Amino acid sequence: MLRRFGFPGLELMADFHIVIGNRRYSSWSLRGWLAVRVSGVTFDETVVPLDRPETSDEIAEQAGRGPRLVPLLHHDGRTIWDSLAILEYMAEQVPAAGLWPGDAGSRAVARSVVAEMHSGFRALRMELPMNLGVDRSGQGYSDEAAADIARIQEVWSNCLSDSGGDYLFGDWSGADIAFAPVVTRFKTYGVSLEPRLQRYVEAVLTHPAMGEWYGGAAAEPWVSPRYE
Amino acid sequence: MLRRFGFPGLELMADFHIVIGNRRYSSWSLRGWLAVRVSGVTFDETVVPLDRPETSDEIAEQAGRGPRLVPLLHHDGRTIWDSLAILEYMAEQVPAAGLWPGDAGSRAVARSVVAEMHSGFRALRMELPMNLGVDRSGQGYSDEAAADIARIQEVWSNCLSDSGGDYLFGDWSGADIAFAPVVTRFKTYGVSLEPRLQRYVEAVLTHPAMGEWYGGAAAEPWVSPRYE
Repeated sequence: MLRRFGFPGLELMADFHIVIGNRRYSSWSLRGWLAVRVSGVTFDETVVPLDRPETSDEIAEQAGRGPRLVPLLHHDGRTIWDSLAILEYMAEQVPAAGLWPGDAGSRAVARSVVAEMHSGFRALRMELPMNLGVDRSGQGYSDEAAADIARIQEVWSNCLSDSGGDYLFGDWSGADIAFAPVVTRFKTYGVSLEPRLQRYVEAVLTHPAMGEWYGGAAAEPWVSPRYE
Repeated sequence: MLRRFGFPGLELMADFHIVIGNRRYSSWSLRGWLAVRVSGVTFDETVVPLDRPETSDEIAEQAGRGPRLVPLLHHDGRTIWDSLAILEYMAEQVPAAGLWPGDAGSRAVARSVVAEMHSGFRALRMELPMNLGVDRSGQGYSDEAAADIARIQEVWSNCLSDSGGDYLFGDWSGADIAFAPVVTRFKTYGVSLEPRLQRYVEAVLTHPAMGEWYGGAAAEPWVSPRYE
C-alpha cells in the first residue's frame, strides 16, 4: 500500500520514501514514521503488514543492505534503517524541524533517554506489546516489566521537571518520538500515572501526527493472531 | 579506581570523566570509553567492577538521572548515559575526531549499523558474553546466535566493500566503536571469518586504544563467576 503525505505542490521533492509495518503493532515503525512526518517533508509510504508468510521477503525487497526489519527510509539513493538512525538522519536533513533540542546539554540528555529506550526495556516490549486496537487495562505484568515502567516514569518525571513545555524537552523532539510507543502501551494496558505524567501522555496522544497514525491503524484490515 | 588519560599539560581541560565497568566484561563500557579515548580529550576514568553487592549503589552515586548502568560520562555539569549517546556527544564536542564519516550518505549508513547493533543481536550478547581473559574457541552456540553472527558478517562485508580503508567506513569511526566488543567476541569464541573480515578484526584489535583497553583488562584483579 503506497500513500503520499505532504503538499501536492511539492511533489517533485517527494524523494523520501518510508517502509513501515502495519500501524496497529509496529512500534519501531511508529518512531521512524513520526521522525519523517513531523519533519514536514513530503514523503511516500509503503506499509508491509507483519507476521504473514511473505512479510520477510517483501521487506527484503526494500531493505537494500539493511536487515529484514522495518522501518526503512529511502532518500537520495540511500537506504537508511533502524528508527534511531532515521531520526538522526531527519534531524540532519531538516534542522528547522527541531528534532533535537537546540541546547547542547538538553540534546545530550535527550539522546541519553532515547538511546536508553532503544537498547532496553525488554520486559515492557515483550509483555506489553503495542496494540492500538485493544483495551487491556486489567492485564498484569511481571516485576521486570514493572521495573521498566517505573524507570520510564522516572525518566519522564525528570525531563518534565526541566521541560518548560508540554513535551519532554519543551517542544516536540526525538525523545517524544522514542517514547511514543510507550505512551500507547500505557494507554492500552491502563498504567496509572501521577497527574503530570498523565498530562504528558495526553499531550502525546493528541499530537496531530499521533492522531494520523491512530486513524491509519483503525483503517487497516490486518489482524495478527500473535498480538491479539 | 580513578585514572587520568591524556596530556599532563592539558589538565585544566580534563573535565571529562567517564565511569565504566571492569574492562574484562563490560562491552557497553568499551564503546563509551573508546568514543572518549579516540576523541583525544583529556579525561578521568572511574572503574566500578560489575557483579558485586555494592556495584549498583556505586554506579547510582555517579549516575545522576541516568539508570544504574555503565558507561556514564560527566562533562560540563552534565551526566550523559548510554554508550550511543556518549558517542554522539563526543562527535559533537570534538568534530575533528571524525567519529562519524564526513559524507552524509556514509554517515547515515554508519548510524544505521550502529543503531542496529545497539538494539539487536540479543542471542550473541547472551550466549557469547564479552570476556577478554579467556579462549572459548570450541564453544558452540544456538541457531539464533549463528544468525546474529551471519548478519554481522554481512554488515561488515557490505561496509568494507565501500570503505577504501582498514575500517568499516575508511578511517576509524563510531561504527568500529559499536562493533569493537563483537570483534573481541569473535576472537574469544574463535568465530572463523573470510580473509577480508579477519583482516578487519585484526585491524580493530591492533588499534592503539584497543591495546590500552586489553592491557587494562589484563591488569584488573576482579573476576566474576557469572562470566567465567
